[in-house]
Amino acid sequence: MRIRIIVPIIVDVFNEEVEREFKTYASEKTEIEVVNLDRGTASIESEFDEALAAPDIIKKTIEAEKQGFDGAIIDCFGDPAVKAAREAVDIPVVGAAEPSMLFACSLGHRFSVVTVLENVIPMIENIAKVLGVYDKLASVRSVDIPVLELHDKDKLKNALHDEMLKAIKEDKAHVLILGCTGMMGLANDLHNMLKEEGFDVPVIDPAAASIKFIEALLGLGVKQSRLTYMKPPEKERNV
Amino acid sequence: MRIRIIVPIIVDVFNEEVEREFKTYASEKTEIEVVNLDRGTASIESEFDEALAAPDIIKKTIEAEKQGFDGAIIDCFGDPAVKAAREAVDIPVVGAAEPSMLFACSLGHRFSVVTVLENVIPMIENIAKVLGVYDKLASVRSVDIPVLELHDKDKLKNALHDEMLKAIKEDKAHVLILGCTGMMGLANDLHNMLKEEGFDVPVIDPAAASIKFIEALLGLGVKQSRLTYMKPPEKERNV
Amino acid sequence: MRIRIIVPIIVDVFNEEVEREFKTYASEKTEIEVVNLDRGTASIESEFDEALAAPDIIKKTIEAEKQGFDGAIIDCFGDPAVKAAREAVDIPVVGAAEPSMLFACSLGHRFSVVTVLENVIPMIENIAKVLGVYDKLASVRSVDIPVLELHDKDKLKNALHDEMLKAIKEDKAHVLILGCTGMMGLANDLHNMLKEEGFDVPVIDPAAASIKFIEALLGLGVKQSRLTYMKPPEKERNV
Amino acid sequence: MRIRIIVPIIVDVFNEEVEREFKTYASEKTEIEVVNLDRGTASIESEFDEALAAPDIIKKTIEAEKQGFDGAIIDCFGDPAVKAAREAVDIPVVGAAEPSMLFACSLGHRFSVVTVLENVIPMIENIAKVLGVYDKLASVRSVDIPVLELHDKDKLKNALHDEMLKAIKEDKAHVLILGCTGMMGLANDLHNMLKEEGFDVPVIDPAAASIKFIEALLGLGVKQSRLTYMKPPEKERNV
Amino acid sequence: MRIRIIVPIIVDVFNEEVEREFKTYASEKTEIEVVNLDRGTASIESEFDEALAAPDIIKKTIEAEKQGFDGAIIDCFGDPAVKAAREAVDIPVVGAAEPSMLFACSLGHRFSVVTVLENVIPMIENIAKVLGVYDKLASVRSVDIPVLELHDKDKLKNALHDEMLKAIKEDKAHVLILGCTGMMGLANDLHNMLKEEGFDVPVIDPAAASIKFIEALLGLGVKQSRLTYMKPPEKERNV
Amino acid sequence: MRIRIIVPIIVDVFNEEVEREFKTYASEKTEIEVVNLDRGTASIESEFDEALAAPDIIKKTIEAEKQGFDGAIIDCFGDPAVKAAREAVDIPVVGAAEPSMLFACSLGHRFSVVTVLENVIPMIENIAKVLGVYDKLASVRSVDIPVLELHDKDKLKNALHDEMLKAIKEDKAHVLILGCTGMMGLANDLHNMLKEEGFDVPVIDPAAASIKFIEALLGLGVKQSRLTYMKPPEKERNV
Repeated sequence: MRIRIIVPIIVDVFNEEVEREFKTYASEKTEIEVVNLDRGTASIESEFDEALAAPDIIKKTIEAEKQGFDGAIIDCFGDPAVKAAREAVDIPVVGAAEPSMLFACSLGHRFSVVTVLENVIPMIENIAKVLGVYDKLASVRSVDIPVLELHDKDKLKNALHDEMLKAIKEDKAHVLILGCTGMMGLANDLHNMLKEEGFDVPVIDPAAASIKFIEALLGLGVKQSRLTYMKPPEKERNV
Repeated sequence: MRIRIIVPIIVDVFNEEVEREFKTYASEKTEIEVVNLDRGTASIESEFDEALAAPDIIKKTIEAEKQGFDGAIIDCFGDPAVKAAREAVDIPVVGAAEPSMLFACSLGHRFSVVTVLENVIPMIENIAKVLGVYDKLASVRSVDIPVLELHDKDKLKNALHDEMLKAIKEDKAHVLILGCTGMMGLANDLHNMLKEEGFDVPVIDPAAASIKFIEALLGLGVKQSRLTYMKPPEKERNV
Repeated sequence: MRIRIIVPIIVDVFNEEVEREFKTYASEKTEIEVVNLDRGTASIESEFDEALAAPDIIKKTIEAEKQGFDGAIIDCFGDPAVKAAREAVDIPVVGAAEPSMLFACSLGHRFSVVTVLENVIPMIENIAKVLGVYDKLASVRSVDIPVLELHDKDKLKNALHDEMLKAIKEDKAHVLILGCTGMMGLANDLHNMLKEEGFDVPVIDPAAASIKFIEALLGLGVKQSRLTYMKPPEKERNV
Repeated sequence: MRIRIIVPIIVDVFNEEVEREFKTYASEKTEIEVVNLDRGTASIESEFDEALAAPDIIKKTIEAEKQGFDGAIIDCFGDPAVKAAREAVDIPVVGAAEPSMLFACSLGHRFSVVTVLENVIPMIENIAKVLGVYDKLASVRSVDIPVLELHDKDKLKNALHDEMLKAIKEDKAHVLILGCTGMMGLANDLHNMLKEEGFDVPVIDPAAASIKFIEALLGLGVKQSRLTYMKPPEKERNV
Repeated sequence: MRIRIIVPIIVDVFNEEVEREFKTYASEKTEIEVVNLDRGTASIESEFDEALAAPDIIKKTIEAEKQGFDGAIIDCFGDPAVKAAREAVDIPVVGAAEPSMLFACSLGHRFSVVTVLENVIPMIENIAKVLGVYDKLASVRSVDIPVLELHDKDKLKNALHDEMLKAIKEDKAHVLILGCTGMMGLANDLHNMLKEEGFDVPVIDPAAASIKFIEALLGLGVKQSRLTYMKPPEKERNV
Repeated sequence: MRIRIIVPIIVDVFNEEVEREFKTYASEKTEIEVVNLDRGTASIESEFDEALAAPDIIKKTIEAEKQGFDGAIIDCFGDPAVKAAREAVDIPVVGAAEPSMLFACSLGHRFSVVTVLENVIPMIENIAKVLGVYDKLASVRSVDIPVLELHDKDKLKNALHDEMLKAIKEDKAHVLILGCTGMMGLANDLHNMLKEEGFDVPVIDPAAASIKFIEALLGLGVKQSRLTYMKPPEKERNV
């Protein structure tokens, strides 16, 4: 199966690491191929960024379908334009937040998300509300590091660890989700650090969650419902 | 006070009627000015249409602020890009769905929305979920008439009346909302028709709700919270 | 339009300030007229006080309608007898809590109320539950100052400021509501104080919210639904 | 133990039957004593009626405590002034709706209430919301018979039976509650009728529920929490 | 009336105290009789323990019915096998958690449970979710003492008192429930200790709640609904 | 990876078909191995059956871990003893309902389950409540065919199709789940039948969902949280 990974930003600084991360988790038979946007923003940290990226995300999803891909992942924890893209195509489309949250629901009593900046906390809480799993959400916390500074992995790991401990102790989280797809390659280390401190909790890498989720959907032979995601009616469109 | 009305479509067929409708409900001292989009779609009937319209809606909102408008209304019941636009400016921004639903919460035990096409029902239900008033929503129904065919007012009025009766009798709605800003000039007639049949229920015109709501916010001297709608961080953006 | 303000207590110590406050926020064309109760209590700080005030609140609302007022505001954050009064008349009736909470829902992700005494916290939370906006309520806090001691404005402002900061930092409130209609003339100052500390959040004055809300309802040409607020059946009544 | 039954209306037409009904269900050692109101209404079928009855209900509750009663039941399914009365005294106070709904939660998956008039349906739904059991409420239905016409027991029983069948078949109710304390002496018959039709469901008599509930509270040695129902602060009161 | 108390463990160390506790709270006419399990575990502190105890709990409930008991109490705060047992018999069956939580809903705005070990906190929260009263649950806390070490009453009382104070101050609990049926004989003392500290809150003993609740059900003449708890279909069973 | 499939009944009539069904959906590298129970019931259609099966389900899960399996599936839509089994082992354990419901949440706005008998409807609704996805559940319907009569595939398919159409039209379901793991080999046909009638909705086979879900968890390298599913404390156990 071939999966198109749409990294919904206009810079390619993450692409190499994204490809490595997805290949780590993808099944052997899954081919993945990473693209960026032509129009949009350098990172997504607001409703504003999501809105600017939306038209090109949809375009890239339609292209993926035309090029014969079996599914498309919009590789961002804000799930930008995921619903719009689902309307546009007949292949499964997933973001990173929904799969992460759904796996988390199964793994424990309550989950927390640790994300980049405070700016996106209401956005993530709203995703949980629309997805219908808000009662399982213990908290959304942030490490206060912008997306484009996530490359300092040690700093990031320490900051994530600190917030995860607070999520466990103060917010009663039993499962943890990395709340940005730029936080790659850290889930295992964080799991081990927390386990050594007495907290044997799952730590979910959102990119990993998205590829395992879409592989599962394809294995099941299902895609998004056309009663929820109806084909957009024909009309004049100028974008 | 000066309010910019952004009709978020690329055709101006509704503008004259929109202006008339808003002036009917606006306070005497309120100046309103209607604009369309340069890029977007001929009507909004899907997540897809909303996503395509989003970047230009934001641009038009920023322009409104620069031109000294006191507030901006995004004149569509899908509330497209409202949250993104709120981040971008320091003047109040409202759509049509949120104000309608909030007034409805105060007026009765449960409300229903009657909209254009089935396509947008999940979108409207999700607005209620994120706004936090989903428990008050009796139902969302549709008349199955596309936006660009709403000009046949008699057909529309009859169809709305029929669905409103069903909303009252089957879904136990006590308040009714017209679920598309293209459904202009009908709220009073529908209220009277229903009243004559024994159902003295408020019927809310969403354009009217949006102008009264933003006038109220301006009268209160408040705008959207900067803790929810933080300023988007500076970065490369190419749209 | 003429609005009757029912200050539902048996003393007139607040009347002058109430009149000034309402005139500050009312539209130019709105005439307001303040009355008190003949039977009731000196302030409202319990379910007990609300129950004792209820019959005369209804009587004063009926009088307002008979005297040709276009709407009635029950000027108390407990919204005492608001539902009963709505049944009794054909003009819109609002309290102070519902309008404040509904505006708050639109302005940010979560709101907190800061009220007078702990006694009324469950009452205010129950208003949010019945109104259907409980999921948006971050917290109800109190300054622990009885209604009849609110005249020391500096003490009150400091106490409100302290609790508002806690609501923001500990309860994650993004919008703030003054939870007593006796807390007049402070919303702007508190907004400015919080803004200077980095929290640009709306602060809602409940009296202001009630007048802007009822003006909006009258502008929309709607009143409470007769399916929720049915006319009370005729019968022997001895009060 | 001695329980004061406050039938919160100004006529005594129900008293004899009320006494018989309560004695049927009370434990042997429980003494019950029935009183009416001096000021109020002939029946309770609206928020309006509840508000008019409230002050005298409180007065009668305080009297009951002074006269050494161990608890007070406000014998009406609207639970009028129950919260206010709980603030005023140190003996347990219950209405009829709360106990009925709480027993129902334990007996089955979902319950319906069948009440007198449509007027009170929103009131009963709001009781369930504030009590916190709204998710268990399948529906509130009415037989469309005013309180003062409930004496035609055959008509009432048939009407109740018909609505109960609809509650079971259409609303998926598994437990049924008689939604007016005037519907006395019918619970067993209705249970048997439904059982014969293949629906072995509990039918709860609200007066019976209230006496068994308050006996249970007294047996547990508990009364309402003073953190929820704080003593009303001293002040001028003129009622 | 005769009630069978099933202490669902394989040791009889608690039986004498259980009998004393139940007799303290039971009505004079209620006969109680305590039994243990033949197969199961020495205490119940996990889903695992509950599952192992379940078959014999059901067997003991069926025996109780055959021996003519009028009702059965499964004397454990996890309510193990209560739903299964209700399917099996035609007499009322209750656990200890449901009755405690339902009484608590009536007594105050929010309740907390203080239980033995952290292990069972998700189980107790899930009981509240299924019972439909989760919105009233302020928190579940633990004293970190295993069931079989509860005999040190002074240590237990102090630990309970400390957690109860935290529940009141930090979690805003207004009603408290002892979250293990092994915590006998302490409710009154704890109530008095808290009252002296200014918190006049009900403290519910779960064994007491269960006996008063089932006596109330029997007094009402009702048992669990056969639409929720249908008779298990006949089939091969080998246990 | 090796997955143990525990068909939690004491007869092996389904095993061959179960093995075929799981192999259809499993990844190439997944080995599956089916076992039954020694003690339990011939089918699971009640809380009663689940309780009787629970101890041996746990035992079989522990055996699977000891024999080196990487995960265990409890192949029943009631998810019997899943939580208890998770406590007992360090490999992931899933039932069939949770994975089906979680995939459904992602695929559309609302889902319905069509199961065997009315008996299990409350059980399935309670699973959704505890899992936290109850707001997404449109309905649970039944075909009124016992588990052991599911072998008549044509009858079953027609009955499922009829109920699915009702779920779509009356309950507004957008995604459908087969609510019994005995309903094998039908999901694709049902999807195609509904699609031809204009309803292009996903139909989820619960066995398929469970194998894809556990493969995904193993691919992610996660298992159930030890903060939710703590190791049961050591004690005397006699089962």
